[in-house]
Amino acid sequence: MCRWLAYSGTPMLLDTILYKPAHSLIDQSLHSKLGVETTNGDGFGVGWYSEDNETPALLRDIGPAWNNRNLREMADHVRSPLFFAHIRASTGTAVQQSNCHPFRHGRWMFMHNGAITGFHLMRRDLTLLVDPALYADIGGTTDSEVMFFLALTFGLEQDPPTAVARMAGVVERAGRDHGVESPLQMTLAITDGESLWAFRYSSGHTSRSLFYSSRVDALRRLHPDVAFLRDISDETRLVVSEPLGDLPGAWNEVPESSYGVVQPGADELYPFTPEPASSGG
Amino acid sequence: MCRWLAYSGTPMLLDTILYKPAHSLIDQSLHSKLGVETTNGDGFGVGWYSEDNETPALLRDIGPAWNNRNLREMADHVRSPLFFAHIRASTGTAVQQSNCHPFRHGRWMFMHNGAITGFHLMRRDLTLLVDPALYADIGGTTDSEVMFFLALTFGLEQDPPTAVARMAGVVERAGRDHGVESPLQMTLAITDGESLWAFRYSSGHTSRSLFYSSRVDALRRLHPDVAFLRDISDETRLVVSEPLGDLPGAWNEVPESSYGVVQPGADELYPFTPEPASSGG
Amino acid sequence: MCRWLAYSGTPMLLDTILYKPAHSLIDQSLHSKLGVETTNGDGFGVGWYSEDNETPALLRDIGPAWNNRNLREMADHVRSPLFFAHIRASTGTAVQQSNCHPFRHGRWMFMHNGAITGFHLMRRDLTLLVDPALYADIGGTTDSEVMFFLALTFGLEQDPPTAVARMAGVVERAGRDHGVESPLQMTLAITDGESLWAFRYSSGHTSRSLFYSSRVDALRRLHPDVAFLRDISDETRLVVSEPLGDLPGAWNEVPESSYGVVQPGADELYPFTPEPASSGG
Amino acid sequence: MCRWLAYSGTPMLLDTILYKPAHSLIDQSLHSKLGVETTNGDGFGVGWYSEDNETPALLRDIGPAWNNRNLREMADHVRSPLFFAHIRASTGTAVQQSNCHPFRHGRWMFMHNGAITGFHLMRRDLTLLVDPALYADIGGTTDSEVMFFLALTFGLEQDPPTAVARMAGVVERAGRDHGVESPLQMTLAITDGESLWAFRYSSGHTSRSLFYSSRVDALRRLHPDVAFLRDISDETRLVVSEPLGDLPGAWNEVPESSYGVVQPGADELYPFTPEPASSGG
Repeated sequence: MCRWLAYSGTPMLLDTILYKPAHSLIDQSLHSKLGVETTNGDGFGVGWYSEDNETPALLRDIGPAWNNRNLREMADHVRSPLFFAHIRASTGTAVQQSNCHPFRHGRWMFMHNGAITGFHLMRRDLTLLVDPALYADIGGTTDSEVMFFLALTFGLEQDPPTAVARMAGVVERAGRDHGVESPLQMTLAITDGESLWAFRYSSGHTSRSLFYSSRVDALRRLHPDVAFLRDISDETRLVVSEPLGDLPGAWNEVPESSYGVVQPGADELYPFTPEPASSGG
Repeated sequence: MCRWLAYSGTPMLLDTILYKPAHSLIDQSLHSKLGVETTNGDGFGVGWYSEDNETPALLRDIGPAWNNRNLREMADHVRSPLFFAHIRASTGTAVQQSNCHPFRHGRWMFMHNGAITGFHLMRRDLTLLVDPALYADIGGTTDSEVMFFLALTFGLEQDPPTAVARMAGVVERAGRDHGVESPLQMTLAITDGESLWAFRYSSGHTSRSLFYSSRVDALRRLHPDVAFLRDISDETRLVVSEPLGDLPGAWNEVPESSYGVVQPGADELYPFTPEPASSGG
Repeated sequence: MCRWLAYSGTPMLLDTILYKPAHSLIDQSLHSKLGVETTNGDGFGVGWYSEDNETPALLRDIGPAWNNRNLREMADHVRSPLFFAHIRASTGTAVQQSNCHPFRHGRWMFMHNGAITGFHLMRRDLTLLVDPALYADIGGTTDSEVMFFLALTFGLEQDPPTAVARMAGVVERAGRDHGVESPLQMTLAITDGESLWAFRYSSGHTSRSLFYSSRVDALRRLHPDVAFLRDISDETRLVVSEPLGDLPGAWNEVPESSYGVVQPGADELYPFTPEPASSGG
Repeated sequence: MCRWLAYSGTPMLLDTILYKPAHSLIDQSLHSKLGVETTNGDGFGVGWYSEDNETPALLRDIGPAWNNRNLREMADHVRSPLFFAHIRASTGTAVQQSNCHPFRHGRWMFMHNGAITGFHLMRRDLTLLVDPALYADIGGTTDSEVMFFLALTFGLEQDPPTAVARMAGVVERAGRDHGVESPLQMTLAITDGESLWAFRYSSGHTSRSLFYSSRVDALRRLHPDVAFLRDISDETRLVVSEPLGDLPGAWNEVPESSYGVVQPGADELYPFTPEPASSGG
């Protein structure tokens, strides 16, 4: 299991979001409160969009985030309007750069907290469903990356919610085929550099924690004294595995079995249901 | 492409073979003479058998062998009658521990120099031929590891030469299917901890260099003054990508398209031919 | 701060001591119970004596112990009568191999849990006290390594308790010189490959936890059903930052301000007092 | 020994300078033509100035530059008007992040190719000359970093050429004191984020190679068809250990025992002489 954070809004120095908060993601790498593991030290990754390249930049490494000097440096020097950060607690697969989130395909990024229970049993079946044209680009060995490639296969770049619903459906079918009762556990963040989709779902409806930040204009009225809130646009939004602090009114749980869209204009929240896949498909 | 070394014989401190020779494998990591690349700095691995465990020990890391302190330490402290060492020059796949040779399955070890040309095109087809019961154990992303798993699928543990011939056959068929003329380039070392099989083959009959050391009794007669030769048994044998020094008479080229067996009793050398696989099989 | 373990006795597979116990050192790397930090993930080291070399072997790496594959391999293959293991939680100095314990000098090993408070202020003063002939061998930047070099300077190889007492004395004087009230916090393990010295001391008499295992013959009588106890000699002894399990009667706290000697024949326990150093010395 | 590159001019994507040229620094990490070693694979570093922070950003790692994915990512996404890049071939000191160039102090960066011959002998003497207020900030174990701290001690931030002359003087005196005939070998790049100083000097007047690029306006007249030259300002300048390509007229050797200043306005080139230090000082 892991912890992650997605930011969209006013271009922001990564440090402000990754290190400064009382219960920052870096703090969570040592002392997660709501995660399955308290320690998330099996690698990390940060991905961000910059002006010079429509493809996001990735910084990923296999050591813990809390002592990584290159991450500390980038946080002090990189400003971005949209970035992902992920700290990993391996559920058994190797600690290697290609298993660190976020994963990237063209301008898309994807990161995951959770697991496919019994992935070892169904790895082959699931991998075979990946578009043969994409298969050779699988770079690591995680369930998470296979989920990403399945979503790409099912049209992620055209319609993320439908692609994720189909991906979840084939994972649950593979679970049934292999006698695994509740195979899927996921919180997901996906972006194309403009919109951000966040999903919270698990087959047993006991999904890992996921929160989104309140509307900035409402927060500003609640906390007129918080300088940070004056510096960010109304459109600014964070989606996080666990709250970064305890500012009253700042954090809202993403409901079980739902997904949200952070986008230019009003954000949206919808129920999420996997698209059932018939066995033998 | 890569360089490798396999040792079988009198239990020997790794240092004696890995570091001491004038053109040792460590020297080859910086200055290979016969390799496709002069530098082999994309990770390394050493595997050895010890008394306490029938499964070999592996030490693998992603940095260059020449500056690795843990390798230096093990070389000074580990004595073994049978060990493999490999230095990697990536042909494009990620530099990560799971892509470092030797690969291991139970008591078997496998290492490779060479490449499957067009592997990106045929990775899916080849991986699908791996025994489904083994598929989920594939830990990295190299062509070499897929070759190992194909050989395991085709009975490596019962009959190495036949399993390797079948593996080579399906690689060449995959090449034909994808329009790659000479897909396979390989020198291989394989062991179960007792015997050692070494193969030299390429589809275009332009195989990478491979050498085996001369019989120790003959060498001793040639060089009665070389102390090292007095310390090792008649059964001691090295197989190497390139000679470790220039002792006259010490090194013999493994012939094109052949394989040798180093084993208790007389060693053997045979021609090697892939077992053709029919398309669609 | 850190956690460590020292073993002396019947030659033992490292795995038996490092991984097998319920609250093994590897478990402590994720979930220390008595340490200042719960996570000790800033590098690790293992040092052991083997038959082929009177100098101990070191395996040290900068990632966490809990996910390190090379450590897992060595634990499965290395058997030793005397070994040290250390997991690090950096108190600020860099996470690099040269800062990982144990440190080594010839056949001697040294490892430390604790810190010199205000080390940044007194690093220069303390380093200048190191024997000029040894100075250039300082390989890292920790307070711990400077403590080792000071002890070497003060005759560690001739008389460890006296050398450590003098080292502690100059650290406390440097503290006074720089206005640091309680500068020294230490539990230390030191060995020459035959005897093992373990120290527990802090300037404020609030030393970090340290335990030693009970006499094996007594434990055997208490627990005649514990197979492990039948496999080890009466001389076998463990000294650990925190108990590896909860076997009744197995663990005894090293008293505040004392040191013990594990050696051929009867082990010993003595009070420890720094040798005061006069200012300006 | 090492290779390095310093860029000052039109804000440029790092990729354009680090990877694109035929004989780029990345290529030099595998196949240096003019360096003492052909392989420079013992770590690397890149430092650059960005708009958000007057302190430069550093990305440093201990593996080879040629296979580092994070460096590849930053090169694709970072644009900067002034950056340093360095690839290391260790002359014996540890391969660790704190030994990778460039070194940084506040807004200053420093990188070095060369060595102090006999550094092991004079490390203590030289380190003692470092300003005590700076001593505790020494983070690694290289001769290069001690040279940087000596230059800082001698007023680098006020007058770089004088500080470097005094540093070179005390190194040469230490050499004399320890019987080392030609102790200093250096090419140096130093910057405060606005100006760039480059030095070429060695005690034996056999300095490592160093080149600077020709005036852009002159090059443009010579090569009106080279698109790259049309995209950069007249002020743009490169200083490099070896030429990045073979464009006629593009590269000029920095004369033996001299230094240059790249700055707003006309650049300058001066002779360089160490400031002799009397023994015992």
